[in-house]
Amino acid sequence: MYLPTHFQETSAARISALVADHPLAVIVGQGADGIVANHIPLMMDRDDRLIGHVALNNDMHRILAEGAEVLAIFQGPEAYISPNWYPSKADTHKAVPTWNYAVVHVRGTIGFLHDAADKRRIVSRLTKMMETRTNGADAWRMGDAPADYLAGMIDNIVGFDIAISQITAKTKAGQNKSDADRAALAVRMDGQGKQRLIPEV
Amino acid sequence: MYLPTHFQETSAARISALVADHPLAVIVGQGADGIVANHIPLMMDRDDRLIGHVALNNDMHRILAEGAEVLAIFQGPEAYISPNWYPSKADTHKAVPTWNYAVVHVRGTIGFLHDAADKRRIVSRLTKMMETRTNGADAWRMGDAPADYLAGMIDNIVGFDIAISQITAKTKAGQNKSDADRAALAVRMDGQGKQRLIPEV
Repeated sequence: MYLPTHFQETSAARISALVADHPLAVIVGQGADGIVANHIPLMMDRDDRLIGHVALNNDMHRILAEGAEVLAIFQGPEAYISPNWYPSKADTHKAVPTWNYAVVHVRGTIGFLHDAADKRRIVSRLTKMMETRTNGADAWRMGDAPADYLAGMIDNIVGFDIAISQITAKTKAGQNKSDADRAALAVRMDGQGKQRLIPEV
Repeated sequence: MYLPTHFQETSAARISALVADHPLAVIVGQGADGIVANHIPLMMDRDDRLIGHVALNNDMHRILAEGAEVLAIFQGPEAYISPNWYPSKADTHKAVPTWNYAVVHVRGTIGFLHDAADKRRIVSRLTKMMETRTNGADAWRMGDAPADYLAGMIDNIVGFDIAISQITAKTKAGQNKSDADRAALAVRMDGQGKQRLIPEV
């Protein structure tokens, strides 16, 4: 992606937080008949790979070869930015519309997992992450479902991991604007109930 | 993308609304060195193409050849769905976590526009769309900026259009669940301040 230095996200903490807070990634790969793209929830496993699973009926695991290069795109908060919102605009009128957003691009090679134990481990990790944050002490657990039902569900998925080769991230949040203009944007985001892109502004 | 019949979005009105309400698309293409992906605001122009622009410094217009195949991915509302939320879960316990979301995939061929008049037209259309909905009668207009400043900004972008060859859309919103379970999901989305995926549920 286009990544000017002032929009480059170099904070490992911010990158990890965006991936953890916005798990629904787009996995993009190149198949024989063109680009294939699917929205799939992912999470980090150790520091060097992403894990997830798809339906057995999802052709992604047939279209992409074992070890194929993929790009997983995570998208954080985003907002249209009107020139009207910059205090400096009233003085100079030198402002144009833009869009602010934060994204993380993870490149790597995909490996598919068909073993039931591997698949259960992936489902268990994703479930624990999402249920703990969603329901706390009332978290749903895989053991809540009948064993034969759950075994059937596991049979109908394919697990995968993505061995990470590169992470690039962009936080486009008006870093090229004055502190006063950026503070005004933060107020606008609050007013729209949108997440500020750079919380400490 | 994986598109089971019951999640296939066939409503042209819903597809148009998702694209108009969520303009920040990911444009994905295949370059000589791998997949290139950029988040870029887009809008429909007539019924058969998307329009947008990138910074002159954005290599996308050099990496992708004139007429290259691209995929533009628009993402609508999305939410993690806990099995705990289904009323039927208390009876059968036959439920697992999932993720609901709505996406539109637009495939087509990209053409780049370097003529200042073409670029101004694209910027003007995008500006009008976003400013009208954002600021109404107080919409910012290109004429609000000094002419030489605006000319310099136009010089620093490249316009493009995407001639559409295929649109596919997915609304994954529990259509495979009972009415009671879907109604309970709608209440959860309201409670989280999230947009319902199927408003009429």
